[in-house]
Amino acid sequence: MLQNELQSAIFRILAGASEPVSRAQLGASLGVGRNVVGTEVRRLLDAGVLEEAGQAESQGGRPSLLLRISRQAGLVGSIDLGATSIDVALTTLSSEIVAHTAEAADIGRGPKRILRRSFELLRRLLGAEGATTADLRAVGVGVPGPVDQAEGRVVAPPIMPGWNKFPVRAAVAELVPCPVFVDNDVNLMALGEHAAGAARGIDNFIFVKVGTGIGAGIVVNGRLMRGADGCAGDLGHLSVNPEGRRCTCGNRGCLEVEAAAPAIVRAAVAAAERGDAPLLAATLQQQGYLAARDVGDAASRGDVGALAVVRAAAGRIGLTLASVVSLINPSLIVLGGGVSQIGDAFLAEIRTAVYRRSLPLATRNLPIVTSELGSDAGVVGASVLAGRGLLLRSLQ
Amino acid sequence: MLQNELQSAIFRILAGASEPVSRAQLGASLGVGRNVVGTEVRRLLDAGVLEEAGQAESQGGRPSLLLRISRQAGLVGSIDLGATSIDVALTTLSSEIVAHTAEAADIGRGPKRILRRSFELLRRLLGAEGATTADLRAVGVGVPGPVDQAEGRVVAPPIMPGWNKFPVRAAVAELVPCPVFVDNDVNLMALGEHAAGAARGIDNFIFVKVGTGIGAGIVVNGRLMRGADGCAGDLGHLSVNPEGRRCTCGNRGCLEVEAAAPAIVRAAVAAAERGDAPLLAATLQQQGYLAARDVGDAASRGDVGALAVVRAAAGRIGLTLASVVSLINPSLIVLGGGVSQIGDAFLAEIRTAVYRRSLPLATRNLPIVTSELGSDAGVVGASVLAGRGLLLRSLQ
Repeated sequence: MLQNELQSAIFRILAGASEPVSRAQLGASLGVGRNVVGTEVRRLLDAGVLEEAGQAESQGGRPSLLLRISRQAGLVGSIDLGATSIDVALTTLSSEIVAHTAEAADIGRGPKRILRRSFELLRRLLGAEGATTADLRAVGVGVPGPVDQAEGRVVAPPIMPGWNKFPVRAAVAELVPCPVFVDNDVNLMALGEHAAGAARGIDNFIFVKVGTGIGAGIVVNGRLMRGADGCAGDLGHLSVNPEGRRCTCGNRGCLEVEAAAPAIVRAAVAAAERGDAPLLAATLQQQGYLAARDVGDAASRGDVGALAVVRAAAGRIGLTLASVVSLINPSLIVLGGGVSQIGDAFLAEIRTAVYRRSLPLATRNLPIVTSELGSDAGVVGASVLAGRGLLLRSLQ
Repeated sequence: MLQNELQSAIFRILAGASEPVSRAQLGASLGVGRNVVGTEVRRLLDAGVLEEAGQAESQGGRPSLLLRISRQAGLVGSIDLGATSIDVALTTLSSEIVAHTAEAADIGRGPKRILRRSFELLRRLLGAEGATTADLRAVGVGVPGPVDQAEGRVVAPPIMPGWNKFPVRAAVAELVPCPVFVDNDVNLMALGEHAAGAARGIDNFIFVKVGTGIGAGIVVNGRLMRGADGCAGDLGHLSVNPEGRRCTCGNRGCLEVEAAAPAIVRAAVAAAERGDAPLLAATLQQQGYLAARDVGDAASRGDVGALAVVRAAAGRIGLTLASVVSLINPSLIVLGGGVSQIGDAFLAEIRTAVYRRSLPLATRNLPIVTSELGSDAGVVGASVLAGRGLLLRSLQ
């Protein structure tokens, strides 16, 4: 698709830009003259990789047409598998979402059924856009477990029964006529926030997902830190309470078993039953169950017992993040996942714990914010992974 | 010094090789033909950057002469400042030590006096080699605190009174006629082990220094992870005991205040005074003080009280390293600093804690070893930093 380094650099700039870009801006970014840029842009326009997108505001001189990556250049398929959900999206090559669908699904149903269903959803989205799998240039897949990058396989996943050593990349590649790229879901959310969310332009940051589990995607010098075995960022199994509850990993008192959604719900039910949390007790009686969201709602409506539960979980997460900050010294922490949305008290308590406990030098310029992409982070990240992978491949 | 990319690639290979290299090996590593390599090697020999170093074992065909970086290509000055010591060395451009001297010095005497004394030691080494500062091609400096890489300044160091914001790079550059490069001492020890020690060829590892303080140098994808403010790897201030002793950083129960040399000595004195550690008690009575080394000696001679002290400290370090392993997923942990040498029980207990507490996937191929370079690690690392910096500069 791309025939030289300059074309690939032009593509990269346009893929990373949130708005159309002029030839003059391309020339300035690349440090090459207008004629050189013009020649390569013409070739990319002729090949259908780029398209024109209106006129730049006049700076005097010739009017300048703005450029963007063409919808006709092809589509990227994004599949984001969670513990209890499948998200599938179609995006442009510059990772803008064209269509997105999601449904509940238990990852424990095993790789064959889950991937077959994901592919059905992808084909349905393609059909609605008048496209077919032949329009796909690449597919990105996220899974809730460690991924061996060399083989595109899941390795020793704690919450994916039946998936150990399953060759996800090879299995998906049999269904589509294009390259397939696979990574851990939280890594992809970090990539998504880096390309198009809260971490745009930030090359050292940590994305923390708090939901049913807790994990982190760590970006160092602009690249994902995957670690020697693809399992870096395993924040959820850091020890916060050596005498604590037994975790799925076999150890005791991991952050995940002490502070993720199930721990919040467990503590909330206990508080409701003890009579410490009247609003939670009412919701529990009405619904028959509590979700983490209910605890956040009750806390923001003034239920002191609910607030104590939120603060306890967020405090543990914050104390652990303070250690992470001392080790990694990031410029930004982005919080995502369902629990990060349960209310202001959660974010406030995490900030308090990190700022109180980390060294001043590491926190003097350390914003802690919530995800901008929300539930789109995973599919956007899968598209970014696939787009970058494709770009690297086209240069070889 | 180097005139093109190929010369620089040749230099890099020779600088990183532990033995002389043949033209054929260079050609194979670089993927270019023998004639092309021969031309550039001839130019580098003529310029005095390389020298011949005997003949390769015959593979048939023409005999092949081995090459190495010339001593005449110039020297690198290495200055490694510790909390209580100055180490100064001269090395070749490929970071082989030519001369090395060390003396006790309190970093708290302030930057001017410490740097003046370091420079005197450097000039003395040069004189003994029949050289002058004009023979220096670069100087590398390590300091026991965070360094702002852009400015070459110390920033907010916890244990370097009088050094905050001091422009180390600029001050040293006034004394020598060559570029100066500055970094944190533990980062340099990691660079040293990477180039010529226990981490040769390993691109994802953690170097942990345990001495008066505790710190880590983290190498990710072959590069030091310095963090947004140059303070990544601050392992010593991770919380291990929220109710614990007050640390110099203002928080309570940091790993450093609970498990570094002073904590080991404190616990050992208490054990001796309680009557739990007869060998320690004897040493204390004889010397009037205990050092961490004495505790290790007593433990290996069967003093149960001393062994308990070593195990308690190592266990805390190991538990903290288990968290680091879950986050970073390295291929190797290298332990250095004085305390790492106090005996087998120390290393054994750290290994036990890491292997017990980390996820199996992250530890199935995770050696934990002690430093190969020992007290040379800092000066070798300073030389590597300076040599690489020089190389990057020569290409600009």
